[in-house]
Amino acid sequence: MSVRRGRRPGESATREAIFAAARNRFAEHGYDRTTIRAIAADAEVDPALVMHFFGSKERLFIAVMELPFDPGEVLPQILAGDRSTVGHRLAEFLIRRLEDPGARMVFTGMVRSAASEPGAAKMLRELVSREILWPLAQDLDVDDPELRGTLVGSQIVGLVMARYVVGVEPLASAEPDRLIEAIGPNLQRYLVEPLWSAGSG
Amino acid sequence: MSVRRGRRPGESATREAIFAAARNRFAEHGYDRTTIRAIAADAEVDPALVMHFFGSKERLFIAVMELPFDPGEVLPQILAGDRSTVGHRLAEFLIRRLEDPGARMVFTGMVRSAASEPGAAKMLRELVSREILWPLAQDLDVDDPELRGTLVGSQIVGLVMARYVVGVEPLASAEPDRLIEAIGPNLQRYLVEPLWSAGSG
Repeated sequence: MSVRRGRRPGESATREAIFAAARNRFAEHGYDRTTIRAIAADAEVDPALVMHFFGSKERLFIAVMELPFDPGEVLPQILAGDRSTVGHRLAEFLIRRLEDPGARMVFTGMVRSAASEPGAAKMLRELVSREILWPLAQDLDVDDPELRGTLVGSQIVGLVMARYVVGVEPLASAEPDRLIEAIGPNLQRYLVEPLWSAGSG
Repeated sequence: MSVRRGRRPGESATREAIFAAARNRFAEHGYDRTTIRAIAADAEVDPALVMHFFGSKERLFIAVMELPFDPGEVLPQILAGDRSTVGHRLAEFLIRRLEDPGARMVFTGMVRSAASEPGAAKMLRELVSREILWPLAQDLDVDDPELRGTLVGSQIVGLVMARYVVGVEPLASAEPDRLIEAIGPNLQRYLVEPLWSAGSG
């Protein structure tokens, strides 16, 4: 297949098709077991075109694994407002976001890939630290902000694993509203409440 | 290699070597990407001997993925005693157990495999439900015991992911004592505290 430079009619549709195929593949099969060839076949394009647009499997992965929301926009909204309900707002945002099939696929793909691929784990670690932990560290006036951020992260990644990847019942089919009520106060504690007795911090 | 029936000197050492090699392989590479051939090579035995002892890759996996403690012995100890500190006792047991490299390898192997292999996810789901959720459901006199059990499970699997598999700092190198203090009260809430407001339960 010949590849011409510059914008062509249909180019952005082609990119979108590759993007969607890559997201599906990485989500279902993880990083290692996903090939450019398989993505190209799903998108019904030539593998060379995937390389032309994205350069490498790693770069395509990073592009696809972008968080399905803009943390720079969302986090300030969650962190602003009543401090006594910040955990509830975070739980509500995440659990509602996970109801969206596209967003859920990105989250589960991240978790699946990070669990089995050291390269994906490193990318996820960097993405989460840069996009989520640092804003948390800067915006919440608490002790140990980074550790609190990672504790929140542990609950979120565990929720994605248990509810969507492993699918343990009755968590897998629990109503979002009940889940927000169940998990919100635990995120609240990790975010702003005292975590350690006076002597051990 | 000829295989004779009955106990031979060195047979249990050979089984141990296969077991250790399988545990390592499954933990590092997950279920799908682990082969009997690779396990046999690591254990320095013939692949036929692995099949002789364990029958199939799936049965070897189940043998290796046994929980690194006896839930029938441990859970009653955790659940008995002061109800106001049951979450602390559970956090203490698990986090201390994870300090042991062998136990940690089993836990991370379970999480890695469950994240990437539907077959392993199904086995983990069944193991966790049978060994942990049902005892919890029977022994704790609370509303929604199974959902509480799976919420606890979500925090534990997330801790294993974040601390050991992905290795997010500063969680990855946090002291066990601090972690027990940080996580215990959250498990406590999931286990026995009210999770829902009166109107929504």
